[in-house]
Amino acid sequence: MNKTEAKLLFEKVKAEQPLVHFLTNTVTINDCANVTLAIGASPVMANEINGIEEMTNLAQALVINMGTITEQVYESMIRAGKAANKKGIPVILDPVGAGATTYRTELALDFLKRVKVSIIKGNASELYTLIGGDAVTKGVDAGVIPISNKELAQEAAIRFGNVVVVSGAIDAISDGEKVVQVENGDEWLPRLTGTGCMAAGVIGCFAGVTDDYFTAASVGISVIGLAGELAKKAILSHEGIGTFRVKFMDAIFRMDGDIWAEGVRLS
Amino acid sequence: MNKTEAKLLFEKVKAEQPLVHFLTNTVTINDCANVTLAIGASPVMANEINGIEEMTNLAQALVINMGTITEQVYESMIRAGKAANKKGIPVILDPVGAGATTYRTELALDFLKRVKVSIIKGNASELYTLIGGDAVTKGVDAGVIPISNKELAQEAAIRFGNVVVVSGAIDAISDGEKVVQVENGDEWLPRLTGTGCMAAGVIGCFAGVTDDYFTAASVGISVIGLAGELAKKAILSHEGIGTFRVKFMDAIFRMDGDIWAEGVRLS
Amino acid sequence: MNKTEAKLLFEKVKAEQPLVHFLTNTVTINDCANVTLAIGASPVMANEINGIEEMTNLAQALVINMGTITEQVYESMIRAGKAANKKGIPVILDPVGAGATTYRTELALDFLKRVKVSIIKGNASELYTLIGGDAVTKGVDAGVIPISNKELAQEAAIRFGNVVVVSGAIDAISDGEKVVQVENGDEWLPRLTGTGCMAAGVIGCFAGVTDDYFTAASVGISVIGLAGELAKKAILSHEGIGTFRVKFMDAIFRMDGDIWAEGVRLS
Repeated sequence: MNKTEAKLLFEKVKAEQPLVHFLTNTVTINDCANVTLAIGASPVMANEINGIEEMTNLAQALVINMGTITEQVYESMIRAGKAANKKGIPVILDPVGAGATTYRTELALDFLKRVKVSIIKGNASELYTLIGGDAVTKGVDAGVIPISNKELAQEAAIRFGNVVVVSGAIDAISDGEKVVQVENGDEWLPRLTGTGCMAAGVIGCFAGVTDDYFTAASVGISVIGLAGELAKKAILSHEGIGTFRVKFMDAIFRMDGDIWAEGVRLS
Repeated sequence: MNKTEAKLLFEKVKAEQPLVHFLTNTVTINDCANVTLAIGASPVMANEINGIEEMTNLAQALVINMGTITEQVYESMIRAGKAANKKGIPVILDPVGAGATTYRTELALDFLKRVKVSIIKGNASELYTLIGGDAVTKGVDAGVIPISNKELAQEAAIRFGNVVVVSGAIDAISDGEKVVQVENGDEWLPRLTGTGCMAAGVIGCFAGVTDDYFTAASVGISVIGLAGELAKKAILSHEGIGTFRVKFMDAIFRMDGDIWAEGVRLS
Repeated sequence: MNKTEAKLLFEKVKAEQPLVHFLTNTVTINDCANVTLAIGASPVMANEINGIEEMTNLAQALVINMGTITEQVYESMIRAGKAANKKGIPVILDPVGAGATTYRTELALDFLKRVKVSIIKGNASELYTLIGGDAVTKGVDAGVIPISNKELAQEAAIRFGNVVVVSGAIDAISDGEKVVQVENGDEWLPRLTGTGCMAAGVIGCFAGVTDDYFTAASVGISVIGLAGELAKKAILSHEGIGTFRVKFMDAIFRMDGDIWAEGVRLS
């Protein structure tokens, strides 16, 4: 990843304000809309099947999050996904809870068969499940798996022929050949719901302004980790996760290419 | 609009605590409930078709927001709307995304035919679409239209025989004869999801305590703009949209007739 | 309730991180997830019928909130409830809006017949309705009833054979024999949406680590009241409900057995 080019993506998002179409869960839908606005893009949250293709056709990226998936919404996801493929815009898949229930695992795999996905973003047990491993997802949080995030990202990227982001204490991103690790983050981030969903959303914002999905994914996931670090620095010792959440959103709102380039830690 | 009488509405809301029944979207439903409580009214969010009329019958105002509309919820909206008409309480319509997809445009127009709506609140492209213009709504955000918000509000109010609020940098409110513009606002408000939905909610709170819907609508929309200004003044230079959101809710919670009368800028 | 043993529950939640499965409303679902993380447990919000038992089987507690109930979700609730009963984990019921509409009252009663509920948490008019009284629930907020919260808690606990929490200015908790009152709270808490839902959630977190549901319920409801008091102390005179909400979550995040034991006021 070329850091100088990556830096420019921040200005590109703010200038082009890509419309990002989300089909997402009801838990963190508000956070996903707000983080998209904070980074400078424009969100539209529309799950309903009527007119779904019409909505996707207005967008520059499509984000599919299976957090509270139902039969009905899954049908919308397939239609939106096919519309995105036809238009040639990136599809970002967040297979929330794959490995926790058979239903979710099957839907994620079915989606990957029927829609060309540009970027998959999941935690280790979700991704490990998708490549056929036997992972235990604790609800929607990651369990323990026997390979490193780096190996997992690469193996999954080869398997699915796209870019894969494995989120964790250290995130790993791969396109099957290149692999990069993002060391940014804060131990409080997993104590806030929706940081994973927001990561997929921010990745969608960047993927909406570039064809280089590997860079878009790497920058997007690192924005979340870095914002977590900046939020922690901004709070006082007696404050907690409520203030952290506010400062986290402030940090994303204030983030630009310079702040990112100075703070990001890649390996 | 008589500003002295308008001022009194704030105390009236706090004293009567009107119950406002929302059928609204899943993105900003929490914000709508909280803003209703902040201004001093009482929200109930109930979309489900079973018992929908019974719930509306308890309320003093009904707010219909089409942000994440489905067939099922639309049927609930029609039933709630008819119950509101029968009881004689005001119906506020927020036709989110009209113009973005044909489905949404058609539902909004169908709703206006089947239910007597007291106040429509939308952005310029939504309203322009509803009066038959050819607007492009970018997802759920306004596109560019060829007439002023003032002309649009008046034309739409005549067309639909009610009060129309066109939200924007300068909001315009009309009952078909009178027109007023609200100049309050802040450039960060569109960077926060749900400020439009909350505007319709606050309008509902005021409409729940007066028959003067023109005044209720004007006061309601101006509360949002003024709260945005007050929020901006309350944040520090390094803070961002996260803190702005908190201060925005603080400002609405602290708002009373005096603060409003001092801060509102009408033309 | 043994206060020394109760104190230990805080560390137990943080150590065991029980998975709490919520089937809850779309209004405060995000707050429920965040409060669960704040207290140290792990939330999973899953309403969808496919794989619902599989999800409940991973959990240590099940929280059922009827705030925005639909036919479909109710079927999921029954299945999740039966799975919880089979596994032997506690079921916490929050019968939101019982008394407001016949439909909601009937569903709550039906649920209590078909699923063994360990703890019911409701406001006075919801509980009074469930024991056959004629209460008027104002939307989802409590109306006035002719008996004390203490009597109501005890009577309902006897009727349903479980632990009952009646929330209010003074909360009452009973297992049919013992009754305890919690005097913690702040007048702003009812001005924030979701504090009732979060109470049921926090109760679920504690019930997930002990078989003593009376203590779990008492500690859980008092955490909300005490956090409200601490939040009020932490805000400045010009701030409002927006800041209060942030400080409320901070207080829950910072809460431990010592802070609780020092601040809780039982009678």
